[in-house]
Amino acid sequence: MEQRISLITLGVADLRRAMDFYAAMGWEGRSPDGDVAFFQAGGMVLGLWSRAKLAEDSGVEDAGGWGGMTLAHNVRSRAEVDAALEQAAGAGGTVVRSGAETPWGGYSGAFHDPDGHAWEIAHNPGWTLAEDGSVRL
Amino acid sequence: MEQRISLITLGVADLRRAMDFYAAMGWEGRSPDGDVAFFQAGGMVLGLWSRAKLAEDSGVEDAGGWGGMTLAHNVRSRAEVDAALEQAAGAGGTVVRSGAETPWGGYSGAFHDPDGHAWEIAHNPGWTLAEDGSVRL
Repeated sequence: MEQRISLITLGVADLRRAMDFYAAMGWEGRSPDGDVAFFQAGGMVLGLWSRAKLAEDSGVEDAGGWGGMTLAHNVRSRAEVDAALEQAAGAGGTVVRSGAETPWGGYSGAFHDPDGHAWEIAHNPGWTLAEDGSVRL
Repeated sequence: MEQRISLITLGVADLRRAMDFYAAMGWEGRSPDGDVAFFQAGGMVLGLWSRAKLAEDSGVEDAGGWGGMTLAHNVRSRAEVDAALEQAAGAGGTVVRSGAETPWGGYSGAFHDPDGHAWEIAHNPGWTLAEDGSVRL
């Protein structure tokens, strides 16, 4: 197995609502069939698909709720953290942690998308973002 | 918000066990402090951290189980799908769907890592993998 992830699929209750949320966050993507939607995200893809179908496809029993996986979006300044959280709130997300200093020397906050998927928005001065937004340890 | 993901963190019960699983899958990473571990994954990072701490950090109540998020790793042939699933089983994962043709014209299977995180291994002839493994829609 090569050391990379090709696709992250988020299970959603309403594809249209989820697409509208990510569009309001500034993401451009498309649904080829009204069933699934794909967004290019650097060298990988973010997908949106029915949570029930994704559960079946993933061989899991789905009791709802959070499953121990959180996404993070790193930005170049503290001000960008606050701006993204504000954008998420305006787009229909829920800010669950306001921007604040972290124990690891950065600044971050977190929101949930309309389906409850958790995102952290972080400024980590120890992780350099390349011009294309990629992160190198 | 730019259209990219910087970090995916998987909540785990035992960092050593989780690191050993991903090492057996061929991933090289390190834990700076025995608390969290990071693996470079293309232009982003895969992290492993205590599921309880991640839940608190993500502002969620964690009832356990799956949360509607599945990772996928695309490969260049059907044989590579089968090989990765076999590798996952040998590394202590659980194959929940054997390699088989899919309705979308590809070939895929799925496994769970020791913490129940779901991965699909897929060959999608419609998605070209660049030499560095990145995917472009």
